[in-house]
Amino acid sequence: MIEPLRIGMVGGGIGAFIGAVHRHAMRLDGRCELVCGALSSQPDRAIVSASELGLPLSRGYESWEDMLAREAELPNDQRMEAVAIVTPNHLHLPVAAAALNAGFHVISDKPATRTLKEARQLADAVQTSGKHYALTHTYLGYPMVREARRRVRSGALGRVRKVYVEYTQGWLASRLEGDNKQASWRTDPTQSGLAGCIGDIGSHAHNLAEFVLGEPMTDVRAWLQAVVDGRQLDDDGAVFFKMGEDVSGVLMASQVCAGEENYLRLRVYGDAAGLDWVQEEPNTLMVKHADGRQERLRAGSNMPLGSDVAAMFRTPSGHPEGYLEAFATLYADFAKQVRGIGDPFVPGIHEALRGMAFIESVVRSSESGGEWREVTHG
Amino acid sequence: MIEPLRIGMVGGGIGAFIGAVHRHAMRLDGRCELVCGALSSQPDRAIVSASELGLPLSRGYESWEDMLAREAELPNDQRMEAVAIVTPNHLHLPVAAAALNAGFHVISDKPATRTLKEARQLADAVQTSGKHYALTHTYLGYPMVREARRRVRSGALGRVRKVYVEYTQGWLASRLEGDNKQASWRTDPTQSGLAGCIGDIGSHAHNLAEFVLGEPMTDVRAWLQAVVDGRQLDDDGAVFFKMGEDVSGVLMASQVCAGEENYLRLRVYGDAAGLDWVQEEPNTLMVKHADGRQERLRAGSNMPLGSDVAAMFRTPSGHPEGYLEAFATLYADFAKQVRGIGDPFVPGIHEALRGMAFIESVVRSSESGGEWREVTHG
Amino acid sequence: MIEPLRIGMVGGGIGAFIGAVHRHAMRLDGRCELVCGALSSQPDRAIVSASELGLPLSRGYESWEDMLAREAELPNDQRMEAVAIVTPNHLHLPVAAAALNAGFHVISDKPATRTLKEARQLADAVQTSGKHYALTHTYLGYPMVREARRRVRSGALGRVRKVYVEYTQGWLASRLEGDNKQASWRTDPTQSGLAGCIGDIGSHAHNLAEFVLGEPMTDVRAWLQAVVDGRQLDDDGAVFFKMGEDVSGVLMASQVCAGEENYLRLRVYGDAAGLDWVQEEPNTLMVKHADGRQERLRAGSNMPLGSDVAAMFRTPSGHPEGYLEAFATLYADFAKQVRGIGDPFVPGIHEALRGMAFIESVVRSSESGGEWREVTHG
Amino acid sequence: MIEPLRIGMVGGGIGAFIGAVHRHAMRLDGRCELVCGALSSQPDRAIVSASELGLPLSRGYESWEDMLAREAELPNDQRMEAVAIVTPNHLHLPVAAAALNAGFHVISDKPATRTLKEARQLADAVQTSGKHYALTHTYLGYPMVREARRRVRSGALGRVRKVYVEYTQGWLASRLEGDNKQASWRTDPTQSGLAGCIGDIGSHAHNLAEFVLGEPMTDVRAWLQAVVDGRQLDDDGAVFFKMGEDVSGVLMASQVCAGEENYLRLRVYGDAAGLDWVQEEPNTLMVKHADGRQERLRAGSNMPLGSDVAAMFRTPSGHPEGYLEAFATLYADFAKQVRGIGDPFVPGIHEALRGMAFIESVVRSSESGGEWREVTHG
Repeated sequence: MIEPLRIGMVGGGIGAFIGAVHRHAMRLDGRCELVCGALSSQPDRAIVSASELGLPLSRGYESWEDMLAREAELPNDQRMEAVAIVTPNHLHLPVAAAALNAGFHVISDKPATRTLKEARQLADAVQTSGKHYALTHTYLGYPMVREARRRVRSGALGRVRKVYVEYTQGWLASRLEGDNKQASWRTDPTQSGLAGCIGDIGSHAHNLAEFVLGEPMTDVRAWLQAVVDGRQLDDDGAVFFKMGEDVSGVLMASQVCAGEENYLRLRVYGDAAGLDWVQEEPNTLMVKHADGRQERLRAGSNMPLGSDVAAMFRTPSGHPEGYLEAFATLYADFAKQVRGIGDPFVPGIHEALRGMAFIESVVRSSESGGEWREVTHG
Repeated sequence: MIEPLRIGMVGGGIGAFIGAVHRHAMRLDGRCELVCGALSSQPDRAIVSASELGLPLSRGYESWEDMLAREAELPNDQRMEAVAIVTPNHLHLPVAAAALNAGFHVISDKPATRTLKEARQLADAVQTSGKHYALTHTYLGYPMVREARRRVRSGALGRVRKVYVEYTQGWLASRLEGDNKQASWRTDPTQSGLAGCIGDIGSHAHNLAEFVLGEPMTDVRAWLQAVVDGRQLDDDGAVFFKMGEDVSGVLMASQVCAGEENYLRLRVYGDAAGLDWVQEEPNTLMVKHADGRQERLRAGSNMPLGSDVAAMFRTPSGHPEGYLEAFATLYADFAKQVRGIGDPFVPGIHEALRGMAFIESVVRSSESGGEWREVTHG
Repeated sequence: MIEPLRIGMVGGGIGAFIGAVHRHAMRLDGRCELVCGALSSQPDRAIVSASELGLPLSRGYESWEDMLAREAELPNDQRMEAVAIVTPNHLHLPVAAAALNAGFHVISDKPATRTLKEARQLADAVQTSGKHYALTHTYLGYPMVREARRRVRSGALGRVRKVYVEYTQGWLASRLEGDNKQASWRTDPTQSGLAGCIGDIGSHAHNLAEFVLGEPMTDVRAWLQAVVDGRQLDDDGAVFFKMGEDVSGVLMASQVCAGEENYLRLRVYGDAAGLDWVQEEPNTLMVKHADGRQERLRAGSNMPLGSDVAAMFRTPSGHPEGYLEAFATLYADFAKQVRGIGDPFVPGIHEALRGMAFIESVVRSSESGGEWREVTHG
Repeated sequence: MIEPLRIGMVGGGIGAFIGAVHRHAMRLDGRCELVCGALSSQPDRAIVSASELGLPLSRGYESWEDMLAREAELPNDQRMEAVAIVTPNHLHLPVAAAALNAGFHVISDKPATRTLKEARQLADAVQTSGKHYALTHTYLGYPMVREARRRVRSGALGRVRKVYVEYTQGWLASRLEGDNKQASWRTDPTQSGLAGCIGDIGSHAHNLAEFVLGEPMTDVRAWLQAVVDGRQLDDDGAVFFKMGEDVSGVLMASQVCAGEENYLRLRVYGDAAGLDWVQEEPNTLMVKHADGRQERLRAGSNMPLGSDVAAMFRTPSGHPEGYLEAFATLYADFAKQVRGIGDPFVPGIHEALRGMAFIESVVRSSESGGEWREVTHG
């Protein structure tokens, strides 16, 4: 048994949604341990949150600057090794850069930064520091997404030509800003960055497509809208895109689809077969063949999937895993990466750059009235 | 019991797909009767086809011109009353116009014509003749589509703002032209018209959205492609669109999605709820509310649907109806319309004009590199 | 084209449910034609019903005895050739026997008779007459049921050992007797026979299992109940059964499952694979293999199914067929059988005897407190 | 933050399936901590397993007797507080009784013991010790199962009358005994107890039905079989049952349904509505009403469910939770129970007695050729 990775958390205190999810994900596989935190931008709230989580009094910090400074003074075998960033977007870069500079690894919520320019600064900081940087693109942690990638790359679909990827939610169908903390910062350009919906969830759809295809999205033509009156950032968008040589696609993202939960779906079509995956029932992957055969692939440690994929499951088929398990895989693999165990895939600075390039190109295309824009990060 | 409507068919002989479907649809409710036909453009094939269908020898015609001329000479109570047109697209206008001019009602496959200009000529012919003209937009015959319309119009979704409509098939994922009659004419501009996929199935998606929303699609921005090498017409397309005051949407149509059967899906979102209908399982309509409630509406004569909708079913719930029943409803309603029974909805010249305006605007937008185009039928 | 089979109907007039279904089924494929009828046990209602259906005045009869007598007097090429029986159960035998004796073929609703003894009389009448007798076990008309049978028989499941078959409805969850004609006769022993639910729908489940397995159900142990207070016949039942050498199973039938529509489901398991079919979505057949592979078989004329199965469809995949199409197949095949075209499968007197033997054994077993009873039709 | 409950595990070392599941479940919510273990009946394997799990050298014990003895010697604030039992069935009672007697709480895999007599001994030990005893009936940890119970109890279904509960798997469709450790002990009467399949998974089905109905299953009539040649215990069974005053039902359990994963399904019908839950997609609960309305209830912290149910979720709707989360809820609630936090529901000795009474009655009924047997736990 390897020592768990010691993690300090920035953000994610009382009332935050994603902080608790990160902590569940850390704990599930026992490869990470929360040892300290600066859990709120309000010092007293930060302290109370740390206490409620059972952190030692000395390691609930009033600010992330404090945390970085004082943890660095602890003995090597006690101090935190990595910082988990779960703040609103505008803090992602400053915290990550400072943590990396201070010699800590970083695992951060997405989007990595507010702009592509910031993402490039982050990439420099990662390179200079020599530390690991992970971006929690949770959906890449689903085993059936890995199986999808494996099938695409093995040529099982034939020559791939068409992609539909969509992500719809309903929770911003009305004007919640002001009352709801999550809604407030996500719709505020100073905290969220260039984009609203397309940054928040469109970036997941983009990331999923690039991951499964193994190809960059090269060009986009976009239409972003603020559907709800008075909203400052987009809450709905659609994008035509090109990938690699031959692939075209449509990406849709919306947070105003009243009644939708968290509908992320990817369809990929080659000339021999197509595949279809829906996040809300993540344990099924459909593969439909041109000759009419349809395979229903089901999740489970004992199922006929790629051996590396089957090895990801904690349970045999019929014992469904879900979102927290996908998230836990990212944390466990991050810990393995830091510890030098195997060569796990962990989304990182490449995905950060790609994501910000996507967001920026989409926003610029939409502003231009829908011109084609290249998606380059480099 | 009313006398069945006497119908003559143009096209749809041996080896044709849609002719047999029309005949099943005519027969199911007993409100129509096939009395004659000019079932192929090849005279001998036309004659043999008529014989195989059991038409009297005297009423299997070598050409549609013959059929119009000779049927007109029969006594009023024997001659055909309406012409069903199931030919490739380029013949829709000439046959329809001639039939209307000769005093026959017309029920035609879609798209109504090859171009919007032709559709306007057809509209003139309809008006001049005073005869009924029906367009077999089959999917409007599904009761759950009527229920969807009813719900949208009653305000059950709140203020409608977002539409996704898509239609994907896989049968043209490879180059079948030459070998396959259906593929050959559909990909040949001289027979099919301006458009391939967007005309063949995109027009169904457009029609479905306009029908359910009760609003015209006003503006489109499109991207059409011929994905399969050497294909002359589009086999794949995507469209951003605006409808009415407040609604935006995405329409997707593709015939190169290997493995897909006939995936027509419509989603409509208001600020209070959304609805979701999928043609391949047409007896279910999902309604999801902003507050998290989800209703699964099921088809059947005994179900709590709009009373006019419930009256459409031939069976109680759990005894599934399908595509032929939807088609049969169009034929039965056309017969009622001609006979002056009630005031059934039958898609007609309005839908013909709208469909051709849509196709033309989409093609023009795509040619222009994706500019917004108005969808007007003048 | 072969001349349609001329059919006279007994029962099924105004207000009846199943009469209209039979008529739709007759018409769909054009192989049958309704030429006369004695459509109600009430003479005036019978006459009005015939008129509403557009039958010639002379061929709407006041009673089925009349119909048999007077049709027999018509010229050979005009008179009805077969009688369709859609009355309550107690009339099945007298009408069928008289029709057969008078030289007419018979197609009858199920159950064939009220008792096994009556079924044996019917079998004698069939044999003596030399005429065709068909029993409308509609669910055997579904192509995916035929595919299920084909797979079982080809050994695709390995050695078959386990069957679950169930049929649940909710429409009799309350006491409708008296108000509702359908409910009234079905719960009245003098009209329905020995059994209520187990005869009405349990017999479908039994028939489906025997058909797909190709084996007789040899022994049953049953528990029938009248769940709704005051009901005279069973409205709910469950049966343990044995089939062939190695197969055991459970059959469930209930009409008091409030909220259920018409949930008929069959699951068959061998040592290599299992299959699962649900009537409410009849166009899908799942096959799950012991090694974890799952095949989703979909209906359609172009799908990789048994060639005789694929030939049954009227539409390609993705254009769903339903209950009326399954029913129409029975009528079309009955017509072919009578005309001597090919060698179609049509459920007939064998299924009649098996069904009545099943009902009788189940009722006797339940009365005995659940002893094993053989299912023999003597 | 409350101190995590300190747990020692018996069984569950290298190669065991359920041990790892328990550990994931303990960790997820951070309310339990594994502090020691006697992880195998083979001493060296026990030691290696402890080391691989990262337990301190001093707390990986060679036997459970050792563990109980030596942990009892540790200071109060360090020693384990509860024992988790994940051994084959025959050890459940001896370990649990000894642990309780030694002053430790117990959380045990099910079935609680091998026989009802043993279960009564266990009940005595629990009572004498005054310690907490929990039985990991995992499926009761699913929030939608709690919602089902809530709806039944609130009268939302009307008067409940009918239950179908079934649990089918395929993994024992062939003879794995000998090669496969899981298969070997489960099919060996000396380790497994009276029953095979009906004890292993039938007991889950029984437990689920009693939990949701809130009524005891009073009488059973059973048919157990060993379908696979040479198997010593049942691998397949079916049970007719009565519950409370008015409810009848059918329970099915089989491990020879080749291709099935872990299909646990419960349907409950009242006179006003029915509900349907399937474990493989546990985040959906269907409620169908007698009037045709169908509600699809979806999991999530933000959904309109019972407030105690909604509070169980760790994620909002659309972020699926699964089997490990259900299991984690049991561990977290057990820890709360021990700590005296709130009044959580934890399945315990009542469920142990009920389960063993069920198994025993079913086995006796089957041996008697299917007589009705009371299900009493004395």
